[in-house]
Amino acid sequence: MTALHDLNTPAALIDTQRMQRNIQRMQERMTALGVRFRPHVKTTKCLPVVQAQVAAGARGITVSTLKEAEQFFDAGISDILYAVGMAPGKLPQALALMRRGCDLKIITDNAAAAREIGRFGAAHGAVFEAWIEIDTDGHRSGIGPEDEALLQVARTLHEASMRVGGVMTHAGSSYDHDDHAALLAISEQERAGAVRAAQRLRDASLPCPVVSIGSTPTALTAEHLEGVTEVRAGVYVFFDLVMRNIGVCTTDDIALSVLTTVIGHQEEKGWAIVDAGWMAMSRDRGTQKQRQDFGFGQACTEDGTVLDGYLLSGANQEHGILSHTGAPDRRIAERFPIGTRLRILPNHACATGAQHPAYQAVRPDGRIEAWPRFYGW
Amino acid sequence: MTALHDLNTPAALIDTQRMQRNIQRMQERMTALGVRFRPHVKTTKCLPVVQAQVAAGARGITVSTLKEAEQFFDAGISDILYAVGMAPGKLPQALALMRRGCDLKIITDNAAAAREIGRFGAAHGAVFEAWIEIDTDGHRSGIGPEDEALLQVARTLHEASMRVGGVMTHAGSSYDHDDHAALLAISEQERAGAVRAAQRLRDASLPCPVVSIGSTPTALTAEHLEGVTEVRAGVYVFFDLVMRNIGVCTTDDIALSVLTTVIGHQEEKGWAIVDAGWMAMSRDRGTQKQRQDFGFGQACTEDGTVLDGYLLSGANQEHGILSHTGAPDRRIAERFPIGTRLRILPNHACATGAQHPAYQAVRPDGRIEAWPRFYGW
Repeated sequence: MTALHDLNTPAALIDTQRMQRNIQRMQERMTALGVRFRPHVKTTKCLPVVQAQVAAGARGITVSTLKEAEQFFDAGISDILYAVGMAPGKLPQALALMRRGCDLKIITDNAAAAREIGRFGAAHGAVFEAWIEIDTDGHRSGIGPEDEALLQVARTLHEASMRVGGVMTHAGSSYDHDDHAALLAISEQERAGAVRAAQRLRDASLPCPVVSIGSTPTALTAEHLEGVTEVRAGVYVFFDLVMRNIGVCTTDDIALSVLTTVIGHQEEKGWAIVDAGWMAMSRDRGTQKQRQDFGFGQACTEDGTVLDGYLLSGANQEHGILSHTGAPDRRIAERFPIGTRLRILPNHACATGAQHPAYQAVRPDGRIEAWPRFYGW
Repeated sequence: MTALHDLNTPAALIDTQRMQRNIQRMQERMTALGVRFRPHVKTTKCLPVVQAQVAAGARGITVSTLKEAEQFFDAGISDILYAVGMAPGKLPQALALMRRGCDLKIITDNAAAAREIGRFGAAHGAVFEAWIEIDTDGHRSGIGPEDEALLQVARTLHEASMRVGGVMTHAGSSYDHDDHAALLAISEQERAGAVRAAQRLRDASLPCPVVSIGSTPTALTAEHLEGVTEVRAGVYVFFDLVMRNIGVCTTDDIALSVLTTVIGHQEEKGWAIVDAGWMAMSRDRGTQKQRQDFGFGQACTEDGTVLDGYLLSGANQEHGILSHTGAPDRRIAERFPIGTRLRILPNHACATGAQHPAYQAVRPDGRIEAWPRFYGW
């Protein structure tokens, strides 16, 4: 039986109790709001985590790569939304998955791709289910709810005998806010924009069964989801320091951390050197522009108690520099001697997890199980 | 036979001709300076690349993790320096590798770890070869060349019957400069500091056969290396935009790029959306504080011609935003239609490579071979 002190460092730890609490919280909220919940599995790419989400009530999953779709379909999950605009060159890979029985949905936000989907589908006797991506906050992809292109794309698909499955949007700009009123406004804008786009399709006698929205901040803020049929969110399963700064979780909700060992000191500078650099933490500096900058992460004791003011202030590939945010701690070598093990809470759980071939799932009784994750495309 | 147009995107491409040129350039320089060259393989973690370095004249390798040591030892490379301060908890893993015949060298910069190395070695009848890490520029780990601790650490190892193999330093602060005079000063400081530390050991009748220094910028700048026996460098094999800004390579030397496909547009903003986000590029923003900020990377055509002014200005997990640095290019959809394939040159080759399970090595004749790489610890 593996225990925490047996683990090699650096290692990505999951606090399974916190993870379960995060899963429950989101699922209960979605159930109360009367919508289906389709978690985004790009955060973890890890089967045991996704199985816990499904066991709690998730209906289908969202993926960011066709490799995720293939892996989770092989593991028995069939209802999959590939939520990145379809590149025509990936249609053969998507079709192969559908032919194996996967209930795959793809998305598009432009007539050129819609035409290619229709052409490829017709050429192969296949009906793709495509959802139309809506832009409700200007942060990335999608068609504006009032945009002429919306009907054009839907008609292109419909007339090519493809299935218009619905509309979907992601209010990614919610990450830029940290007060409840602003988040509430974005949540409502996300909901209203998606519902309006669906209405325009229906008014034009085009089908639009699904209205799908979501991001962790908006999903945890919205007061009602009238007209929405499903919500997607990913990072809520672990949370992270970015989400803590946004205000949708507390530090004590963060279920992912990186276990590290002290390997050196520069006492006059107040530095401890640890074996978690950016290879273990990722280069994500998501808190840099937020209300509290946590450097490359917040230090905690090996058992998870937050060490106030001690941050991973710098990171090279396999070295982290741990220091106090105030005056240099010249007793740092005494406080954290060589061999001391610490946990570091990450800025961004999706990016940190991606650096690790496996998570180490730490159960409340201290038992540890390796949960593999995958990467690549 | 795989060709460029067969590749799924995103994919990490190596221009093998540029790579070979970079390898030759460095090796010839080291030979001319009269030192051994021990490349740092953390940049690629890829056997065919390391084999090309060895074929060109490298003597031994440098690694950043014991996993790299294990993998490359299994592939037939025995002379390995593990260049991260030894954590006592990793001694059993190091010993296992030595017992299999690996000529492993470890490093330390403090008496506590030196004592543990001596204690563990004695308890297991093993002689560890340890090099002492020297701090020549204050950027991270190591003992100052004039520091009292230097002799203390060496004596601790020596008296415990461990082998003091030499001194090593890494002038990581060379990354903070971009003019030749400053780089020359740092190079000389790195050389002189390491040589001085070695002299102090020898003056105290302690052994110090090796004097090892290096970083890509200093290795390509130093005018003489008197007293130095070997040099280490890693990123020179691919180079990247950070190195281009430092001034030790040109954009045309960069051998690593990420192949991507255009999947959407926001024409009024002048954006093309591509399928290379931070998962493919890494979150590294190394050029952010340099003379020219390349965002998440410099766009090129599919065949590698630089598209001046077109950068990956934003990145989400699987989405990149490509835009012009000047006024929004409102004809971007016409310029880069859906399905257009582009290459993106990265900020930091070590970080970008780490996001990919394999490189796609593109030969001058267009043939492509997948070169696997590994990750984890």
